[in-house]
Amino acid sequence: MGPKTKSPPGDTNQSDRDIFFMRAAMEAAIEARDKGDIPIGAVMVHEDKIIAKAGNARKISSDPTAHAEILVLREAAEKLGDWRLLGCTLYVTLEPCTMCAGALVLARLTRVVFGASDPKAGAVESLYTILADPRLNHQPVVTSGVLADETGELLRGFFRARRTKKAEKYSNTSD
Amino acid sequence: MGPKTKSPPGDTNQSDRDIFFMRAAMEAAIEARDKGDIPIGAVMVHEDKIIAKAGNARKISSDPTAHAEILVLREAAEKLGDWRLLGCTLYVTLEPCTMCAGALVLARLTRVVFGASDPKAGAVESLYTILADPRLNHQPVVTSGVLADETGELLRGFFRARRTKKAEKYSNTSD
Repeated sequence: MGPKTKSPPGDTNQSDRDIFFMRAAMEAAIEARDKGDIPIGAVMVHEDKIIAKAGNARKISSDPTAHAEILVLREAAEKLGDWRLLGCTLYVTLEPCTMCAGALVLARLTRVVFGASDPKAGAVESLYTILADPRLNHQPVVTSGVLADETGELLRGFFRARRTKKAEKYSNTSD
Repeated sequence: MGPKTKSPPGDTNQSDRDIFFMRAAMEAAIEARDKGDIPIGAVMVHEDKIIAKAGNARKISSDPTAHAEILVLREAAEKLGDWRLLGCTLYVTLEPCTMCAGALVLARLTRVVFGASDPKAGAVESLYTILADPRLNHQPVVTSGVLADETGELLRGFFRARRTKKAEKYSNTSD
């Protein structure tokens, strides 16, 4: 399935640009995986430049809020010197959770692009539709499904490897 | 209206203890106000001791995620060396928003106590009931309405003063 977008029409380069920035978010996801964290990555784009890039760091930093989205939000706000991230687009490999979706609304983000859906915890289209809630004071434009297969496979591969490792551990224990 | 609680019965000191810790959260709210931020404060309690205390710092730190709840979550996790805050109780003067409610679930918090309700953005009982969502992998016990009048009055007083200041400014401009 191709990407679903709610962004304005007439932007013919959108797809190529979105794929380019999603690949950068995937790089951050791979770096997170190589440090032992779940491979989710994000970049913040402002005026067609990446101003922040981070992978999920919950385990390595012992910080429950250290999702990739929160880390790039904080880094971008620091660089721009404003908590309002008007004109910014976030690219993230996985559908944001409740915490991250809430943070994106608070930061007045212009646009959010994500890769794979998260049926267990996603708060953009799966469990909730927080970014489209008219009761909150801001609604970012959303594009979903960009490189959905590749970003999803990164996660599935990680959990597959972890299960294999655990199985080997138990198998060695019983020897 | 008195506090509504869903915590286990048989704890006769709950009320006094909750009021004690909510007053500490109010101190943090007042400190935030004195620095120019919206007066919301929080403390994290572990084994009957305050291990983290913070006021809302969104404006002063230019960080869209710097709500009082997020700041105490991060400080507590750093102190305990674990992103899981099992056995911890958060006291916060205002009903948590979507971002903060999501973060409390992610941190596996045991209990959440808040003061005033937030009909515009609250995600515990007002707009959403995220802490009670059985689809998410954790549900903290919730107590609401502790010192609701005093914590609410802190906020109302702040916005009243801000409106007066703005009105004076425009009145001076027109002279």
